[in-house]
Amino acid sequence: MDGLLEQLRAGLPAESLITDSDVTASYAHDMASFCEAGTPAVVVLPRTVEQVQHVMRTATALRVPVVPQGARTGLSGAANASDGCIVLSLVKMDRILEISPVDRIAVVEPGVVNAVLSRAVNEHGLYYPPDPSSWEMCTIGGNIGTASGGLCCVKYGVTAEYVLGLEVVLADGRLLTTGRRTAKGVAGYDLTRLFVGSEGSLGIVVKAVLALKPRPPQQLVLAAEFPSAASACDAICRIMERGHTPSLLELMDRTTVRAVNKMAGMGLPDTTEALLLAAFDTPDPSADLAAVAELCTAAGATDVVPAEDAAESEMLLQARRMSLTALETVKSATMIDDVCVPRSKLGAMLEGTAAVAEKYDLTIGVCVHAGDGNTHPVVCFDHTDADESRRARESFDEIMALGLELGGTITGEHGVGLLKKEWLARELGEVSVELHRGIKQAFDPLGLLNPGKVF
Amino acid sequence: MDGLLEQLRAGLPAESLITDSDVTASYAHDMASFCEAGTPAVVVLPRTVEQVQHVMRTATALRVPVVPQGARTGLSGAANASDGCIVLSLVKMDRILEISPVDRIAVVEPGVVNAVLSRAVNEHGLYYPPDPSSWEMCTIGGNIGTASGGLCCVKYGVTAEYVLGLEVVLADGRLLTTGRRTAKGVAGYDLTRLFVGSEGSLGIVVKAVLALKPRPPQQLVLAAEFPSAASACDAICRIMERGHTPSLLELMDRTTVRAVNKMAGMGLPDTTEALLLAAFDTPDPSADLAAVAELCTAAGATDVVPAEDAAESEMLLQARRMSLTALETVKSATMIDDVCVPRSKLGAMLEGTAAVAEKYDLTIGVCVHAGDGNTHPVVCFDHTDADESRRARESFDEIMALGLELGGTITGEHGVGLLKKEWLARELGEVSVELHRGIKQAFDPLGLLNPGKVF
Repeated sequence: MDGLLEQLRAGLPAESLITDSDVTASYAHDMASFCEAGTPAVVVLPRTVEQVQHVMRTATALRVPVVPQGARTGLSGAANASDGCIVLSLVKMDRILEISPVDRIAVVEPGVVNAVLSRAVNEHGLYYPPDPSSWEMCTIGGNIGTASGGLCCVKYGVTAEYVLGLEVVLADGRLLTTGRRTAKGVAGYDLTRLFVGSEGSLGIVVKAVLALKPRPPQQLVLAAEFPSAASACDAICRIMERGHTPSLLELMDRTTVRAVNKMAGMGLPDTTEALLLAAFDTPDPSADLAAVAELCTAAGATDVVPAEDAAESEMLLQARRMSLTALETVKSATMIDDVCVPRSKLGAMLEGTAAVAEKYDLTIGVCVHAGDGNTHPVVCFDHTDADESRRARESFDEIMALGLELGGTITGEHGVGLLKKEWLARELGEVSVELHRGIKQAFDPLGLLNPGKVF
Repeated sequence: MDGLLEQLRAGLPAESLITDSDVTASYAHDMASFCEAGTPAVVVLPRTVEQVQHVMRTATALRVPVVPQGARTGLSGAANASDGCIVLSLVKMDRILEISPVDRIAVVEPGVVNAVLSRAVNEHGLYYPPDPSSWEMCTIGGNIGTASGGLCCVKYGVTAEYVLGLEVVLADGRLLTTGRRTAKGVAGYDLTRLFVGSEGSLGIVVKAVLALKPRPPQQLVLAAEFPSAASACDAICRIMERGHTPSLLELMDRTTVRAVNKMAGMGLPDTTEALLLAAFDTPDPSADLAAVAELCTAAGATDVVPAEDAAESEMLLQARRMSLTALETVKSATMIDDVCVPRSKLGAMLEGTAAVAEKYDLTIGVCVHAGDGNTHPVVCFDHTDADESRRARESFDEIMALGLELGGTITGEHGVGLLKKEWLARELGEVSVELHRGIKQAFDPLGLLNPGKVF
């Protein structure tokens, strides 16, 4: 331990090391529930690539595990410390190095906050789509580690689709460059994509080349109230089947609508069993919304309210944005699941989730990135009630099993981390897990990078 | 050898094996120039996953190398046979298994021809964008192996972006499932993407889940003539900088324009030094073309001709489509390069390529996927002239060096194969190549899959 600190200090300025256990404790975990967190030996906050290399060389020399961290807004425990580890926080490497409107790329350090980048590129007429809910806090490095999604994905896809190239410090401290800054490129295996979503288990991302889109027009939002989740899902299928490309397509179930209503006095009728929000950022969003409104009505919507301008659109989106916060007030604790199914199975998924809630006598609110079939069932429970906590955990698992049965995945965008580690093999199968181990062995033969996470 | 055929026959119907050396010779190579091809021991054409597994189990048991093949339209020699190998052609596994308009996916076997899939999904109002020039012949399996691109990429991206999940037979015959059929998913490492562009070196793709887009409106094309390549590149930068999203943006240099003119009597003036084609498949393509026309004029275009309808658009595209064929008539042989640079460097790349042509006293025509910065310099030479052939090969290499100098890649979409194998390490660096070897080792420890290709 003393040897560790001494060696770290040899290549890091004093202010980049935190050893005060009161402070290091605050770096012990991310925002996931039900995930164990250990006590780090030290937290390091490097500011340069060389400093990261020094940390990894030291860790390799002394065989100390390293847990890389962004802003710790993750929801799977992937950033949780293990006992005696070095927590390697990248938040101080937060420079935007380049923004090129002609090449439509940005080059950034991993600690850049998503919202900071979004605003910076916006000033150049550009758009960095990935927008996880935590976008005002989370970092690009964390987004890359967890391959995070957001509301934009139905039209613009996930983080993975915006990472063109990386600089990565490997477990032994060597620097690897992957990918490119060109629009296309197929030289060798796609190592870039291998790092995206690898939850810090293969290397430390220290620089990223990101693809940007032209800034789209302001989106216009429509809200549609449905008398049942099934009719809302029917509308979703019709919208996608007809070839529409909404920039947002979100569903809130009855429980969520009521929680939001109670919290913010939105004035939604209690008869609303499902609320669908659709948005378009096309040249003529009103025309697209009118077409979608018709499909909603045909599917049984009781009320369809298109926003007339940006301000009204923003008001409608508020309801979606406050969903999780509102559901958190239902009980003392929540567990957020993240099961993605083919969108044609969304109706079955919601029906099944309601059955799970009933079976376990629990309140489960569901927010859905409906265009992607990505459901976030939020299990609400009293964490001081041991039996209810057990039921919450069991229902959480049963929802994942349901997702797999429907041809879905245990995680659409939150990742595996510690929370779903035991479920990964069930989704992937043994052959895949064996290949995962082979890749891990090639990148991190000593198993020092974020050990015990993912698989 | 007898043992090999006997064991293969035990699990394959007679018509799936070709041993006649006159016929197997026709499977020896793809469409690349300057790449060696060996003599296969046997060609197998399995029709089922189980048959592919049998082939791989046999190959593993007898330590016989396997070269997987699609339609052999590749341009890097990646599908070339090695002496004594099993050529594993997937062209008979050509069923489209599913097309879902709600989930916007297609599930296909690897031997499905790109154009067949494109037409099939079109009937459902859907669109499979990747459109390599060989789309009427090439297979989806080959497209996945080479991560192929096409004209659509500037708006719709490359093959990699459309592969959601795979079934893969591994070197030892085991079956691996990767990815998903959902819109999103982040469970584990992105093995799907690792296979895309791996040129058959990691496993045999036997099934693919592909993402589809809604069918866009018919595109409208504009042609702009420029007095210099530099002014055309200036126009390209202006178009991209202003946030336009053309569905096609192609550049033909003077040599290409003249060859096409000569071949087809297009009536383009001899003063045209560069021809730019831009297209939009937006709701109001005429408006977008008008805006682009203005930018072209501002950049110095001498003539700008927007098509008025689909027929005129098709005529303009003909010129681009016949470019390679026209350049093939210049001399007895051609070598097609595939260097992609940041689009802001396109002017420098074209200038440098012209200098290379002059230095080596060669005719080099350049067609460019301009929106992507992906140049295809076509070196025209007399293959019976040893000195000119040598100069052709040297100029080819110098063009790659130039691309790397400009921050580009040695291959934008054609792949590495045999043709650029020696150049890969120069682009990737030693650390990356070492990791490539580690991954290869994890997937194919005996080194039986397409040995000697890529790296």
